[in-house]
Amino acid sequence: MNLWRRLLAEWLGTMALLATVVGSGIMGQTLAGGQVGLALLANAVATAAILYVLICTLGPISGAHFNPIVTLAFRLRGELGNLDAICYVLTQLIGAAMGVLLAHAMFEQSMWQPGIQARTGTAQWLSEVVASAGLILTIMLGLRWRPTAIPALVACFILAAYWFTASTSFANPAVTLARSLTQSFAGIRAMDVLPFIGAQLLGMLVAMGLVAGLSPREPMTTD
Amino acid sequence: MNLWRRLLAEWLGTMALLATVVGSGIMGQTLAGGQVGLALLANAVATAAILYVLICTLGPISGAHFNPIVTLAFRLRGELGNLDAICYVLTQLIGAAMGVLLAHAMFEQSMWQPGIQARTGTAQWLSEVVASAGLILTIMLGLRWRPTAIPALVACFILAAYWFTASTSFANPAVTLARSLTQSFAGIRAMDVLPFIGAQLLGMLVAMGLVAGLSPREPMTTD
Amino acid sequence: MNLWRRLLAEWLGTMALLATVVGSGIMGQTLAGGQVGLALLANAVATAAILYVLICTLGPISGAHFNPIVTLAFRLRGELGNLDAICYVLTQLIGAAMGVLLAHAMFEQSMWQPGIQARTGTAQWLSEVVASAGLILTIMLGLRWRPTAIPALVACFILAAYWFTASTSFANPAVTLARSLTQSFAGIRAMDVLPFIGAQLLGMLVAMGLVAGLSPREPMTTD
Amino acid sequence: MNLWRRLLAEWLGTMALLATVVGSGIMGQTLAGGQVGLALLANAVATAAILYVLICTLGPISGAHFNPIVTLAFRLRGELGNLDAICYVLTQLIGAAMGVLLAHAMFEQSMWQPGIQARTGTAQWLSEVVASAGLILTIMLGLRWRPTAIPALVACFILAAYWFTASTSFANPAVTLARSLTQSFAGIRAMDVLPFIGAQLLGMLVAMGLVAGLSPREPMTTD
Repeated sequence: MNLWRRLLAEWLGTMALLATVVGSGIMGQTLAGGQVGLALLANAVATAAILYVLICTLGPISGAHFNPIVTLAFRLRGELGNLDAICYVLTQLIGAAMGVLLAHAMFEQSMWQPGIQARTGTAQWLSEVVASAGLILTIMLGLRWRPTAIPALVACFILAAYWFTASTSFANPAVTLARSLTQSFAGIRAMDVLPFIGAQLLGMLVAMGLVAGLSPREPMTTD
Repeated sequence: MNLWRRLLAEWLGTMALLATVVGSGIMGQTLAGGQVGLALLANAVATAAILYVLICTLGPISGAHFNPIVTLAFRLRGELGNLDAICYVLTQLIGAAMGVLLAHAMFEQSMWQPGIQARTGTAQWLSEVVASAGLILTIMLGLRWRPTAIPALVACFILAAYWFTASTSFANPAVTLARSLTQSFAGIRAMDVLPFIGAQLLGMLVAMGLVAGLSPREPMTTD
Repeated sequence: MNLWRRLLAEWLGTMALLATVVGSGIMGQTLAGGQVGLALLANAVATAAILYVLICTLGPISGAHFNPIVTLAFRLRGELGNLDAICYVLTQLIGAAMGVLLAHAMFEQSMWQPGIQARTGTAQWLSEVVASAGLILTIMLGLRWRPTAIPALVACFILAAYWFTASTSFANPAVTLARSLTQSFAGIRAMDVLPFIGAQLLGMLVAMGLVAGLSPREPMTTD
Repeated sequence: MNLWRRLLAEWLGTMALLATVVGSGIMGQTLAGGQVGLALLANAVATAAILYVLICTLGPISGAHFNPIVTLAFRLRGELGNLDAICYVLTQLIGAAMGVLLAHAMFEQSMWQPGIQARTGTAQWLSEVVASAGLILTIMLGLRWRPTAIPALVACFILAAYWFTASTSFANPAVTLARSLTQSFAGIRAMDVLPFIGAQLLGMLVAMGLVAGLSPREPMTTD
């Protein structure tokens, strides 16, 4: 595929992902009337559903990364060149920010909303390490054993991770940055962004190690 | 397939879709006791589930459009003749209206309920553009890359779009018109119908442009 | 397959279905604390999930009818003999009743609970006609076009039908009779059982007519 | 596959399962604000989603047992040696306990929390017999008739079993022991663990009998 077409797919997919995360967060918060659990359930279900759609429809074009740590993991595996990787990440960042603005516009909110929700501390960072490691493991093992199920696998992982981590599982530097642009349910303070991204990168590396440990090294063993 | 058989499928499917949208809206409203978030969750889950069933079972007969902008999109691609397209749209309008009446009858409500719920303003219209563009993109890209997953793709897209748009995502002129015939949870004022339909048509055109941008033009490039 | 083995599958499946319908109804009612909408959502999700499991695992043995109107529909199509059909229906009735008792036992309730919940009137009966017609249509069209998806199709149809019908969609004479044996969330008065079963039979016949209308008659037309 | 690699998969999978069960329980309890039904729904959905992911991605490596009664059932069928079975069970116990600690760490809770929630009595034990029999039946019949659907089948069974049993369906001795290490939503008193495990073993044996009854004995009959 032509690089421009792949970047168009990454832009569209990351924008749609963020519009869903932030939009369904606003809708949930508005309708749930203080019932935060219900808002998070709707938020998680909507995000999982759109991930299934986006990965099925855009995956064959760009690989459907929508996430710098996924792009970086494929770069580390040598499946993507440097230029492609850089273009992917920049496109994801732009798409993610535009997705947040689109959600604000659809819900008639002010466009400029610097995030105010504190998300910090070792428990939050550990959550992001776990969520990111789990996401990369899901993708890498899924690609090896059941590639056609990747859209459902990523959707189900994120659906669960919304609930089993204290951070509701950002697991994505582009998502993290973009969510610092909203004061709604899904927001995060700008000052809490960098440690989150650090934790996400660490989680990615943990996953790469586990994938290596779980993969048969054919030339060396005769299992 | 014989045209009459295809129209029977379009009528049955659109009627079932509207009976589900309106019926589950009434049920949710009744049971949720003011907890509107829960009513919308049930509404969204029921609609997604019946879409999966209807597209699996009626898709092989008529294509399972149930939606004038879908029929129009296929007409624009030259996959449907003028006569077929006109018959499809008329059948969808009739089926949709009958579905609303069926829901009223099943819940022992008065049949004649001109809609009273205001749904207007640029935020609502933008929501409809986004929802309709997303729906058409989902169908067109899904058809290209994973045609057997179309029923699950459309179901998941609508499940998400109920939550990430401010309008709860009508994305269908037949549905919009029919929902002006109910005063229940899913209703809309008659005067708000036309701008919604305009936004839906615009969204469809946006999607056609994006699909063109995302599709390899084999004879001209050598990706 | 040996008839006894098929009857064992029908007994086990119908018992598991009723244990789930009634058990998850009791659990939902207990935990939801008056939030009936949430109880119905849990009830519907649990029923759909177990239907998927039961039809996948027992379908290859007995066909996974678990429902006298399904057995009767296959009898009318000539795919089942009279003796088999009678044995199936009797087994379903026994399994269904035992499933209710199993649910009572698991939740430490008295075993003998004649149903007290009134479910009567034309709106309820119309709901049962619609639900039963939809179920039979789902099965018959699914078998024709996408047989491996039947477990997911039936699960999704029932998930939606819990919400879009005023009766929460019994659509099954064995289920209806068995639910007259419980005073929990899912119960029904004994005197309301017969009209429900009549409506279910009518719905089945409506569906058989629609299936005929939707099916190409190869020898006569050249679509 | 190399035994160490399989044990790594069992450790990782059981740890992730428990981190999800306990973590989503804590999150649900925190957010639901007394709405226990909603907490259980989130708990069940998250557990089902992660089971689908774990069985898809780790199943091809270790079989994805994550459960001593599953390992024992395969041992009884002669598909696993004694040494392998013992290593699997020990690994599951270690992974399960570590998963609970991981959840506590992610939610900033004290690590050491001896369970205090009473779960005892014949109704609870019967629930565990039923849940465990159902789980083993799902796996064994699934393996026979639709092996690629095993991840979805186990996920759906557990989703339903959370609701149709009075015990919310532990159905796993490693899970039961590990849940005695938390005082959160998903906990259990240490003194209630052994009877639960006894019930789970009994359920497994019931299932093995039913599977035998449901399986054609080819050399002896000519169905």
